Amino acid sequence: MENHPSGVISNGKIGFSTPSFTRERDDEEPEICVHPYIPGWFSEYSPLWPGQAHLLNIEKIHFQGKSEFQDMLVFQSSTYGKVFVLDGALQLTEKDECAYQEMMTHLPLCSIPNPKKVLLIGGGDGGILREISRHSSVEEIDICEIDTMLIDVYKEFFPDVAVGYKDPRVKLHIIDGTLFLNSVPRGTYDAIIVDAFDPIRPDHELFESQFFELVSKALGPGGVLCIQAESICGVIGFLLCSTEGPYVNFRSPINPIDPENYGISNQPLKFYNSEVHSAAFCLPSFAKRSSNTKAKSTAN
Amino acid sequence: MENHPSGVISNGKIGFSTPSFTRERDDEEPEICVHPYIPGWFSEYSPLWPGQAHLLNIEKIHFQGKSEFQDMLVFQSSTYGKVFVLDGALQLTEKDECAYQEMMTHLPLCSIPNPKKVLLIGGGDGGILREISRHSSVEEIDICEIDTMLIDVYKEFFPDVAVGYKDPRVKLHIIDGTLFLNSVPRGTYDAIIVDAFDPIRPDHELFESQFFELVSKALGPGGVLCIQAESICGVIGFLLCSTEGPYVNFRSPINPIDPENYGISNQPLKFYNSEVHSAAFCLPSFAKRSSNTKAKSTAN
Repeated sequence: MENHPSGVISNGKIGFSTPSFTRERDDEEPEICVHPYIPGWFSEYSPLWPGQAHLLNIEKIHFQGKSEFQDMLVFQSSTYGKVFVLDGALQLTEKDECAYQEMMTHLPLCSIPNPKKVLLIGGGDGGILREISRHSSVEEIDICEIDTMLIDVYKEFFPDVAVGYKDPRVKLHIIDGTLFLNSVPRGTYDAIIVDAFDPIRPDHELFESQFFELVSKALGPGGVLCIQAESICGVIGFLLCSTEGPYVNFRSPINPIDPENYGISNQPLKFYNSEVHSAAFCLPSFAKRSSNTKAKSTAN
Repeated sequence: MENHPSGVISNGKIGFSTPSFTRERDDEEPEICVHPYIPGWFSEYSPLWPGQAHLLNIEKIHFQGKSEFQDMLVFQSSTYGKVFVLDGALQLTEKDECAYQEMMTHLPLCSIPNPKKVLLIGGGDGGILREISRHSSVEEIDICEIDTMLIDVYKEFFPDVAVGYKDPRVKLHIIDGTLFLNSVPRGTYDAIIVDAFDPIRPDHELFESQFFELVSKALGPGGVLCIQAESICGVIGFLLCSTEGPYVNFRSPINPIDPENYGISNQPLKFYNSEVHSAAFCLPSFAKRSSNTKAKSTAN
């Protein structure tokens, strides 16, 4: 998402020239930019969702900086608490980060009987670590994050999210997830959670098939993967997969969380529960028809 | 929603002066307005959701006008099809109207065994009529809508929505819903659907209690009401109630729609199915705790 593509809007009515809030203006950029910009507001315009934008009021900018890898912005919004933005894309707000972190963690971990070793790729904010920490069966939590500045910024401005790093089971590896996976003995993990990239990449397909192969090798029999997937109806989608071995029925969580065990957090679960878990797999009719059609054409 | 309240944003960073797209500028309005405005984009800023706004690109304006009751705008968006705006508030887009119309109709009608008489208050676009039309048990469909211009605009620009009016069981009453309810004999309806107003009203509570009493009288034993309610986590909420009589378990739809019966539409259901129906009642943990707390304090 480093460059918003031009040409998405064809009516010539857009007359805004300022690029994304967090980016330095490049003199060679064209005057006409495809996304709106308003002083005092953060505007997210994603090529994933052309023709629309979401605006959040900025009350105060807490931090702006650039690491070796990406631009970062932390601001105070008027109704979502503090907001973290990475390369112009909204990553997390204090108000609703719970939904993403909890679902991404507990959908896989509550679907298998006794998760012991868990690997998180990305997720440098620490929120998923905080959620893994609620599972008492877990013995080792590895996290691969390349951007140490990102971790530091979260620790300073989002302590209730970065609290996950305080769990003594967590081991931080400053290394690219793919490289790390290459070094991991076969069948090491019970669950792998990937919170690392947007679905838009130029080398999308090649990258994906190689990456999924590595993940598959790193998982033991009946091991599970959870990764952010495209949204089919406006809400975040997750892709859940399991390796060969004991059958994993993701729709029926068999490993509920002890509600008294907050792990490293001092808060109970805000979003996840077993009912919401199962409900997340109920698809609207258009999506069911589409997956049926695809299954049929694959079968043929 | 005729006036966006000022003073919601207190940091003085907003420098936009143009009021909502559909409104004539009033010279006495203050220069500083609380919502963003960008030429070529429709911006929805609701006092329900302060500090944020959603923008849709305008490719072409199809219609702008003012009825006796409200301002109307129909525009072509680049990715949501045609969009209908009422007094500055987004009402419907061609792309996703299905979710609202189908859920609002089938949540109540699929929860009771044999709906025969249905009343719709508001919903002048015709989409809910189209959905009621899929129920073969229904014999009479009354609709109360005060704004005939709104109906005409929908018929011209959204024929696949307004198609509902073509069902011969539909009887249109150009009258305020409350007045109509006053004239209705006790126990007339099996289901009443209210798609008429935003949850923001100055006379909110008084209005609501009187209105709900009228609805209750107009329903027979075990009759059901569905009305739009506040959103608790970013998605639309519905309030479902039933009168005394045969127990209605809204979570378990007992009256599924015949998938072959499209009613007056030429399209199958896009969003609703029985699984999605039940899943809609699974609340996130924070909402469950809140309703438990309320139930307890009521009991005390």
